[in-house]
Amino acid sequence: MKKLKVGVVGATGYTGEELVRLLSNHPKVEVTYTSGKEDREVKIQDIFPYLRNKVDLECKAFSAEDTIEKSDFVFLSLPHTVSMQVAPLFLKAGKKVVDISADYRLKDEKIYEKFYRVGHRDLPNLKHAVYGLPEVNREKIRHAKLVANPGCYPTGAILGALPGLKQGVFHPESVVIDAKSGVTGAGRKAEKSLNFSEVNESFKAYKLFEHQHVPEIDQELSRVLRKNVSVVFVPHLLPLNRGILSTIYVGLKKKITTEELIGLYKKFYAGEPFVKVYDNGLLPELKHVANTNFCDMGLRVNPGKKLAVIVTAIDNLDKGAAGQAVQNMNIMSGFAETDGLF
Amino acid sequence: MKKLKVGVVGATGYTGEELVRLLSNHPKVEVTYTSGKEDREVKIQDIFPYLRNKVDLECKAFSAEDTIEKSDFVFLSLPHTVSMQVAPLFLKAGKKVVDISADYRLKDEKIYEKFYRVGHRDLPNLKHAVYGLPEVNREKIRHAKLVANPGCYPTGAILGALPGLKQGVFHPESVVIDAKSGVTGAGRKAEKSLNFSEVNESFKAYKLFEHQHVPEIDQELSRVLRKNVSVVFVPHLLPLNRGILSTIYVGLKKKITTEELIGLYKKFYAGEPFVKVYDNGLLPELKHVANTNFCDMGLRVNPGKKLAVIVTAIDNLDKGAAGQAVQNMNIMSGFAETDGLF
Amino acid sequence: MKKLKVGVVGATGYTGEELVRLLSNHPKVEVTYTSGKEDREVKIQDIFPYLRNKVDLECKAFSAEDTIEKSDFVFLSLPHTVSMQVAPLFLKAGKKVVDISADYRLKDEKIYEKFYRVGHRDLPNLKHAVYGLPEVNREKIRHAKLVANPGCYPTGAILGALPGLKQGVFHPESVVIDAKSGVTGAGRKAEKSLNFSEVNESFKAYKLFEHQHVPEIDQELSRVLRKNVSVVFVPHLLPLNRGILSTIYVGLKKKITTEELIGLYKKFYAGEPFVKVYDNGLLPELKHVANTNFCDMGLRVNPGKKLAVIVTAIDNLDKGAAGQAVQNMNIMSGFAETDGLF
Amino acid sequence: MKKLKVGVVGATGYTGEELVRLLSNHPKVEVTYTSGKEDREVKIQDIFPYLRNKVDLECKAFSAEDTIEKSDFVFLSLPHTVSMQVAPLFLKAGKKVVDISADYRLKDEKIYEKFYRVGHRDLPNLKHAVYGLPEVNREKIRHAKLVANPGCYPTGAILGALPGLKQGVFHPESVVIDAKSGVTGAGRKAEKSLNFSEVNESFKAYKLFEHQHVPEIDQELSRVLRKNVSVVFVPHLLPLNRGILSTIYVGLKKKITTEELIGLYKKFYAGEPFVKVYDNGLLPELKHVANTNFCDMGLRVNPGKKLAVIVTAIDNLDKGAAGQAVQNMNIMSGFAETDGLF
Repeated sequence: MKKLKVGVVGATGYTGEELVRLLSNHPKVEVTYTSGKEDREVKIQDIFPYLRNKVDLECKAFSAEDTIEKSDFVFLSLPHTVSMQVAPLFLKAGKKVVDISADYRLKDEKIYEKFYRVGHRDLPNLKHAVYGLPEVNREKIRHAKLVANPGCYPTGAILGALPGLKQGVFHPESVVIDAKSGVTGAGRKAEKSLNFSEVNESFKAYKLFEHQHVPEIDQELSRVLRKNVSVVFVPHLLPLNRGILSTIYVGLKKKITTEELIGLYKKFYAGEPFVKVYDNGLLPELKHVANTNFCDMGLRVNPGKKLAVIVTAIDNLDKGAAGQAVQNMNIMSGFAETDGLF
Repeated sequence: MKKLKVGVVGATGYTGEELVRLLSNHPKVEVTYTSGKEDREVKIQDIFPYLRNKVDLECKAFSAEDTIEKSDFVFLSLPHTVSMQVAPLFLKAGKKVVDISADYRLKDEKIYEKFYRVGHRDLPNLKHAVYGLPEVNREKIRHAKLVANPGCYPTGAILGALPGLKQGVFHPESVVIDAKSGVTGAGRKAEKSLNFSEVNESFKAYKLFEHQHVPEIDQELSRVLRKNVSVVFVPHLLPLNRGILSTIYVGLKKKITTEELIGLYKKFYAGEPFVKVYDNGLLPELKHVANTNFCDMGLRVNPGKKLAVIVTAIDNLDKGAAGQAVQNMNIMSGFAETDGLF
Repeated sequence: MKKLKVGVVGATGYTGEELVRLLSNHPKVEVTYTSGKEDREVKIQDIFPYLRNKVDLECKAFSAEDTIEKSDFVFLSLPHTVSMQVAPLFLKAGKKVVDISADYRLKDEKIYEKFYRVGHRDLPNLKHAVYGLPEVNREKIRHAKLVANPGCYPTGAILGALPGLKQGVFHPESVVIDAKSGVTGAGRKAEKSLNFSEVNESFKAYKLFEHQHVPEIDQELSRVLRKNVSVVFVPHLLPLNRGILSTIYVGLKKKITTEELIGLYKKFYAGEPFVKVYDNGLLPELKHVANTNFCDMGLRVNPGKKLAVIVTAIDNLDKGAAGQAVQNMNIMSGFAETDGLF
Repeated sequence: MKKLKVGVVGATGYTGEELVRLLSNHPKVEVTYTSGKEDREVKIQDIFPYLRNKVDLECKAFSAEDTIEKSDFVFLSLPHTVSMQVAPLFLKAGKKVVDISADYRLKDEKIYEKFYRVGHRDLPNLKHAVYGLPEVNREKIRHAKLVANPGCYPTGAILGALPGLKQGVFHPESVVIDAKSGVTGAGRKAEKSLNFSEVNESFKAYKLFEHQHVPEIDQELSRVLRKNVSVVFVPHLLPLNRGILSTIYVGLKKKITTEELIGLYKKFYAGEPFVKVYDNGLLPELKHVANTNFCDMGLRVNPGKKLAVIVTAIDNLDKGAAGQAVQNMNIMSGFAETDGLF
């Protein structure tokens, strides 16, 4: 079988690297193009030596022409506001695109502008972009030309809160998400606050209520519930490389036991290859999902407080970014959804 | 001036070690007795080499007679259920005692039995023990013979939630505490789940709603508020050595701005040497309090959700254990409250 | 094509877990048996949730009969001294065996007894066992029934020192190996000294000159060089999960430049799929090899001191254990040597 | 007693911060001046909140006039090449100076220029500066106006190698130092290679043979031995905050047992408040010296290889920088050498 030729635009950040790593082990694709901010000619397998048995490919400064010539499917792993400048070129050339930036996630360009501080530059494609959370939008993804890959925090948050909200068990206005992320979520950058000695042996909350992922969570929950939902969201920075654990507190609209709630979630996610609802008494840990595309979750009801807690765990670089992007590519390309994924 | 002779019973766990470290640098005391589970004769400065310029003292198997003979003030850094077997001996001998275990914290022995799975064996002293949170009970501590040093989680939780509850700003039944602790909180023990490779690069929630510190938080908040309070408490295990960050969510009973709430907290803690309320926009990080006796806190109101978040940070071995124990000793002994503390 | 049925005896330690992880993604094998020390009936994918899309298999208390019935190829990931009690059963039943313990590595049973404190119990098979370092013994491995998978430290040490020794460039008696290993090398066990808070933020040397891997390194270097070689070996414990970096100091017998030495190593390892000799000026880092089966190495000559340094990096669980075991299975089974490996 | 007024020029890097922390707890000094690269007016206790009970002091952009006006003793915690531009001003004004940069360590300005890539600008003071390793130069330090505080690596290396070299037990040309440092050694800076996710779970050697601390080690060993000594030095980067462990390999000129060598070292360092030679069988770990000014060391002879290993451990920010600077100040000021130090 001829392999799908895929290009990775922005291959040297953490997400781009993980994408190339996953794709270079994928049975049905061939990585045919990578670009990065390197100013010299360099091979991608020299930047990431562990790729050397898998790919033999230059990692050049970005060229749209090259990308189009060499790839049939394009991943954009670019900074926010840059993706929307190049995605139209690929779509026009008939390529399918998964964009991992935030550029095509928020349907309301005013909210985009508010949170990303720049006006949107590609409204026509924004309109047609599909939010790439397969557990919610699988059919739309199957037919999409442009998929907006979800943010890392929203993936763990939405998957955790949605079933109970949709079934009317949770008060829509009661959702509090206390999320904790590893450091790769901040990207591969030179920044004093990300220096090892600043992060190691420390822990902090940041951007209380104001993180740019809040409108993304609100939008998707509201869309599915067909009513306005707004969540309380507080992210924290964990001294570890990979993973997001979200502890989600919700008010209960009706009496329900832990067993019943777990049953409801298991039914909701029945057949989902990458969501695992734990049995009563068990809770996910980040090491359970590290280097995998899974979202694991555990639940518990506090009847006295009419409240439930849902704990979800993902690898922010996999289910929270590159892994989910590959999952979306699999769906868009008619491959088995688990191909090339752990 | 003659120095106070202090004994540390249980000097080889993390809290005991920190106690000896602090006390050996304290200007007004001399460590005159240490015991541990060592089966051989060993000097405490050989177990912890960095003590060698500070103390020269054997660390023996525990003997009540020795402790009484050599010490005027006794710290018990023993496992729960063991403290209550020895504290009466010291009290009877006229020594002042700070007990760092949970044995004298819970006034209701039925709750003690439920959470610690053993009947209480020293009800007479339990009755008179003072809960050693200086910001709440300073005057009682001053006159106490037996102080029950607060648990690590309760210290950060109570200091964060109390001012707003006491001023009637928060709904008493709305308190949700999402707490994250470093690994020394679990003690110095051989346990597979505490193995470096199990904890490192991972993160998890545990004991949802059921942690033994819940009744302690409830008891103290209820006592001060003179009404029954019960909180939602979810602890997590951080891959770092020292520190607890508590993210506390509370429902607002009345309209209040972030500035006003911060003002209220600053007033509440005015003059407190070890509580620091941050200015608007700032939040504590664990590295700000590591190796210190401080409880730092930042606050923020979410007016749309009628909710506030208080983030508190402590070092679990200092303000959460040994530091607070020294603070209590300082108060009980008429020393400056900050003596020997960072 | 029918898949090879493989059993993993001892599947719940770090090496056993990594074996199952690798094998469950291997295109030509099926994991058909796992055993562990579990006292209850449990599925291997419930112990390691990320396996759930890959295997559906009970992890029982060990039974030789079951293993033989269900597997055509057996991996022994057992403690030293246990392997030699069960390996004969599998060999007798006609199974091929890769033993990851030390039991079949040392050809001289007196040295085995000295370092492992128990007499050898399977001398007949010890005689025929092949030391499973493919870069040295590939042809023997191809025909072996029993392969003794090399120790983690010896793998990085031998691969780094051998080429220069064999070409007569290094003094055989001058080899000093300063090795640093991650904590998974110590196994998944409850031990106070392996507690997170003991290892984290610390670093130490241990077992100076006396580590049980010293005779293994000496034996293999001596065998290939056909003269007695003994090395100086000092291991250290790194506060990280996976990886061994070995800094190897050797005295030069003849003048050679860094470029020439690198050339010699590149030639020696030409065609090797899992050894990468870096260009001049580059050095390996543990993150380059984490989760891969590679041994990366960098070299530098200090002409003034007539000395060279070779730095090798491996993942102790992959090239240092489970990965190399799979590589050996691939060779023994006629698969491509890189099948199922990163 | 009137306290010594000390200024810290460069108070916001890791060493400057540690200096202020130590000095603010020192019984005989008062920190009266701090400067940093802050562009706004800020208090030092707002940058490092844990200082708030200890100091109340602005941290301004550097002004020599202010420093001179407010301080009697000046610490320079500045980048290399900057110190030599300001030290002359303070010396001229009659202040005593401890410079923590490398500017006054290397007596040969050509070597300085070779390693720091700039010509020396203060040769007159360079000539009189005393290398501030108290165990070697205590009397000179006592009378010095300008002390060049040793580098972090040289401190652990020289203290480990010197006694055996001086007593003629080690071959002077045989010294190999395999050193491993925590990340604070690289300074508080924004640099991609120091990003948490790059350092965490990794380990590497760097600057083989070429580190700028090599000439410093060579100079001091040569000076004491009165013959040219040159060492082999290979530094590595540890994924932890604080500490340097140096594993030093030396060739033996004469037969000596481990016990005898330890005896020789204990005699050499008898009375030294901050050097601890361990008994036979014991080795230092970084946690033994963290947050202290100690250099701990363990030794072992390998008689078959005519070689000894010395393992030294220091906290790079304390004995390797700020602690040793305070020790030097204590000596220069007639204080007890251990004042204010752990």
